[in-house]
Amino acid sequence: MNAPLDFSPLLARTREPFPASNKSWIAGSRADLRVPVRDIRLTNGEVVSVYDTSGPYTDPAAAIDVRRGLASVRGAWIDERGDTEAYAGRLAQALDDGQRGEDAARLSELRAQAAALQRQPRRARAGANVTQMHYARRGITTPEMEYVALRENGRREWMAQYSQDAARERRLAGNPLGASIPKIITPEFVRQEVARGRAIIPANVNHPEVEPMAIGRNFKVKINANIGNSAVTSSIEEEVEKLVWAIRWGADNVMDLSTGKNIHTTRDWVIRNSPVPIGTVPIYQALEKVGGIAEDLTWEIFRDTLIEQAEQGVDYFTIHAGVRLAFIHLTAQRRTGIVSRGGSIMAKWCMAHHRESFLYTHFEDICDIMKSYDVSFSLGDGLRPGCASDANDEAQFAELHTLGELTKTAWKHDVQTMIEGPGHVPMHLIQANMAEQLKTCHEAPFYTLGPLTIDIAPGYDHIASAIGAAMIGWMGTAMLCYVTPKEHLGLPDRDDVKQGIIAYKIAAHAADVAKGHPGARARDDALSQARFEFRWQDQFNLGLDPDTAREFHDETLPKDAAKVAHFCSMCGPKFCSMKITREVREYAAARGVGESEAVAAGMQAKAEEFNRAGGEFYIPIVPNAI
Amino acid sequence: MNAPLDFSPLLARTREPFPASNKSWIAGSRADLRVPVRDIRLTNGEVVSVYDTSGPYTDPAAAIDVRRGLASVRGAWIDERGDTEAYAGRLAQALDDGQRGEDAARLSELRAQAAALQRQPRRARAGANVTQMHYARRGITTPEMEYVALRENGRREWMAQYSQDAARERRLAGNPLGASIPKIITPEFVRQEVARGRAIIPANVNHPEVEPMAIGRNFKVKINANIGNSAVTSSIEEEVEKLVWAIRWGADNVMDLSTGKNIHTTRDWVIRNSPVPIGTVPIYQALEKVGGIAEDLTWEIFRDTLIEQAEQGVDYFTIHAGVRLAFIHLTAQRRTGIVSRGGSIMAKWCMAHHRESFLYTHFEDICDIMKSYDVSFSLGDGLRPGCASDANDEAQFAELHTLGELTKTAWKHDVQTMIEGPGHVPMHLIQANMAEQLKTCHEAPFYTLGPLTIDIAPGYDHIASAIGAAMIGWMGTAMLCYVTPKEHLGLPDRDDVKQGIIAYKIAAHAADVAKGHPGARARDDALSQARFEFRWQDQFNLGLDPDTAREFHDETLPKDAAKVAHFCSMCGPKFCSMKITREVREYAAARGVGESEAVAAGMQAKAEEFNRAGGEFYIPIVPNAI
Repeated sequence: MNAPLDFSPLLARTREPFPASNKSWIAGSRADLRVPVRDIRLTNGEVVSVYDTSGPYTDPAAAIDVRRGLASVRGAWIDERGDTEAYAGRLAQALDDGQRGEDAARLSELRAQAAALQRQPRRARAGANVTQMHYARRGITTPEMEYVALRENGRREWMAQYSQDAARERRLAGNPLGASIPKIITPEFVRQEVARGRAIIPANVNHPEVEPMAIGRNFKVKINANIGNSAVTSSIEEEVEKLVWAIRWGADNVMDLSTGKNIHTTRDWVIRNSPVPIGTVPIYQALEKVGGIAEDLTWEIFRDTLIEQAEQGVDYFTIHAGVRLAFIHLTAQRRTGIVSRGGSIMAKWCMAHHRESFLYTHFEDICDIMKSYDVSFSLGDGLRPGCASDANDEAQFAELHTLGELTKTAWKHDVQTMIEGPGHVPMHLIQANMAEQLKTCHEAPFYTLGPLTIDIAPGYDHIASAIGAAMIGWMGTAMLCYVTPKEHLGLPDRDDVKQGIIAYKIAAHAADVAKGHPGARARDDALSQARFEFRWQDQFNLGLDPDTAREFHDETLPKDAAKVAHFCSMCGPKFCSMKITREVREYAAARGVGESEAVAAGMQAKAEEFNRAGGEFYIPIVPNAI
Repeated sequence: MNAPLDFSPLLARTREPFPASNKSWIAGSRADLRVPVRDIRLTNGEVVSVYDTSGPYTDPAAAIDVRRGLASVRGAWIDERGDTEAYAGRLAQALDDGQRGEDAARLSELRAQAAALQRQPRRARAGANVTQMHYARRGITTPEMEYVALRENGRREWMAQYSQDAARERRLAGNPLGASIPKIITPEFVRQEVARGRAIIPANVNHPEVEPMAIGRNFKVKINANIGNSAVTSSIEEEVEKLVWAIRWGADNVMDLSTGKNIHTTRDWVIRNSPVPIGTVPIYQALEKVGGIAEDLTWEIFRDTLIEQAEQGVDYFTIHAGVRLAFIHLTAQRRTGIVSRGGSIMAKWCMAHHRESFLYTHFEDICDIMKSYDVSFSLGDGLRPGCASDANDEAQFAELHTLGELTKTAWKHDVQTMIEGPGHVPMHLIQANMAEQLKTCHEAPFYTLGPLTIDIAPGYDHIASAIGAAMIGWMGTAMLCYVTPKEHLGLPDRDDVKQGIIAYKIAAHAADVAKGHPGARARDDALSQARFEFRWQDQFNLGLDPDTAREFHDETLPKDAAKVAHFCSMCGPKFCSMKITREVREYAAARGVGESEAVAAGMQAKAEEFNRAGGEFYIPIVPNAI
């Protein structure tokens, strides 16, 4: 049965295609390699094609049943490589779901649902290494790499008209600040970037549903959104809907930071229904398994948790292996100490045992697991600053240097690796963070949380951090972890998640434009052109959030007619600066004269015409244009 | 009668003091020179004193009657200088209010209210020049300059404890990017800055109610909010309340961009009740006077409007004198042409007459008016880019060079001058704007609208522009004109105004911190310290918007007890990274050992203690900390 018979109304709403949009596919070198894009149909006949993170959910033709999970994208590619094997997998335990005997009936029901979803786990055959980095270094261009190349390029035919003016292109040429972004991303370029560790493609062999994407400074800047399980887990639809909501607005990656009850089961639901890479912080679940007592953590429990999650298909693990015993005292004079949850758990363990972190001492054992599934490292910054005052301190950089050292170790095993970064950093200290990371971590992708540029904006930290995120994205950060308006205060709700994502899409896009990513600016150009030509619907639909733009417009000018009118609520119907400019241009075009003469002649003629016409009214009603 | 008998409920709400805050005053060298600050009382006994733009409205002891206007602040200072004279003033006309005979009774009533408010106008005695720049250049330190110095410094005693760690101060030292910010702002420093044109103190002799403030790169970065009259003007309270709302959230300046009916009268209401400088764009009203037909504008009508508004007390005029006939054709190939309302009006006039702008040809005549009242120039950027694609083009810079030339002319007359700037500029092109402005306009204060860094975020342009605003503020822009979420879409409502202001307070503060403005970071430190010590109320009250912070917190943990609890909704009551750090420190402090040993000893002891205690629970429920 393919029809989504018992689709929840919630998920049905989230699945609505964007206005005037449809999904199309860029064909790759094989029939099963099709890269989705979103085509926005403009009222003037143009089609603007944009990067699409929303997966099959926004495709009305896709029959999706969250109880069965998404169709496989990569299954055949993994099979063909012949270097993995299906196996029985680890025996599931009640403890995986934080259950200690209670709610047995409910758990049994939930796990039955999960079992129906769960694919049989695969891992590398004995002696094999199945990471994209391993293939890349052996000169193999995988379908995943080709997919990424096609996805990064997108469709560009429509952009040509926006870049015909050579002088303008020179004036607006980006400043990549050391990035090396080719005009066209080839599969071979992707391979090279992955081989040298400058990009990763998070893609666990147990997550064949993923639509491959790349994180690296020479690709588009990506964003991550965090989701977590509900206090009371009610249904697969509800958990999956959070994911679908986040990717709808543009999350390139999602971290599942669920804790407490039913997290194993919830993770099955999320991964089986996720077209984007899923990251986790395994220490959270390991801690649950030892009843929340950090000092009871052991390497064996942690290792078991890694395998549990790797079998489920988690694409990257945050591992706080840089929180070393010797660094903890460096945080003692800080204003806000250790603020990373994972970092503080490990600090507590190190303190309790007065021993080096088992994440550090067992790092190569972890690498062995990672390469068996192609789970990527996200080396956690457990000692990141928790306020501006602690930014760029000795503790932070000591950990960063360790992460650089661990990067080398991971690369020795061909394990894909990115590095997490702060946090809280005033604007003038951001550059030093990026420079230090690039140098110390050998250009492994940087993945920062913000950074927040000031501390006095509780309730608005998505803005305080979007400033820092845009800047560090320009400077070379490959992925930005979002911050919601609820940061430091409480639980983000559905709208907070959206606000955080949009703020970070702004930051990421601002970075792409500043770096001069080919084609990044074209969407701005198309929107500005629509604005100039009073194509209101196009202006809304080209924006990051068409719904809000339309709603804001309609508050002032609700009639449908206003959406094709050649005016806006700012200057009223009878006078408009953009209109004047257009009139001059049309005059010139109609006469077929050269630009300068046309303008001069046009101005003279307009002088006469304006004098004849007279009587226009200037009715400005929005108080915002100075 | 002093009691605010018929105070509207709306304004009464706006007048509530901020939580745990009271106004106090820094005493100057004379009894009538008292500079207000807002003192925030923390729960630990500290008092954090912050810059206060809200005027007497947040002082419950102030008897305010909007029908009488605010008490004079500067009246005696102006009188004592003996260089101005009261005079009859220009005869008011019905046309000043956009009235053409209709609604005579209503107009008469409104004007009677305004007449009761209006002070008798003053102007410079024959041959005198009453600008702050004129005094400054003659070596006179005015009370206004002393006021500004005290205000920029604020109270700093409370900050000492946050800057005792010399190593930390070195690590966090700002990067002023060419600004020269002294540790303590002296009145003499203010005088020097005003004398060389690097700062202005907008303070019309007819606006004695103003609490003087400075706009200049060596002072705190300021923000401007725009307000406009309601479509149907209902009451003084309603118009004044908009102003009070804007300054409550931190607007340092307000531009009254009212148009249409009753604008003269509304302006009387606003200025008489404004403790912050008020700016206008006089060409808007002049255009109303000629029935909205740009080409019917004349120098005489414009001149008459300048005098009308100068007599009312407008502190700065946006004058688009850089929109020269020769530059208009440079906009013909732009994607969005001319987007400034004032700029397009003047472009239309130039086109209609094929003559040089009367604002340019009569610029020295305008200077003569400005110096008679001490109205400051805000030289408008009528050719600013309206989209990223038009940024930094020939038209924009041609106008900027003209503004630099006009700055020299204004300075020849000792007229205070600032320069308006864009607009829409991708991040990588911002620095060139600032550099060009500093060079071309001789460090006259820059006053930018944003800039917006991307064009694809309609509905979120306050965020897209706060990124650019923070960066250009750091680079040297002195005042940031806010952008609301409704920009490009519709009329900002009350909440939009607040959203725009908070976003811009974030940008301005981020810039101050990056520049290393003395004491700017202390408020962040105080808030971070409160966060670390779980002083929730202090954390809310030290923020830019205590109401929203408290509301967000209460959504998750609504009980009062949660506000003194040593945990937050992020990690739950039984485990917290900040708590661990505190425990280590307390251990060290209690034993009175040196820092390093203390930490080492503390860690060893904590190891044992943790082992003994055990059983803590880790209950993270917010999915945002990686």
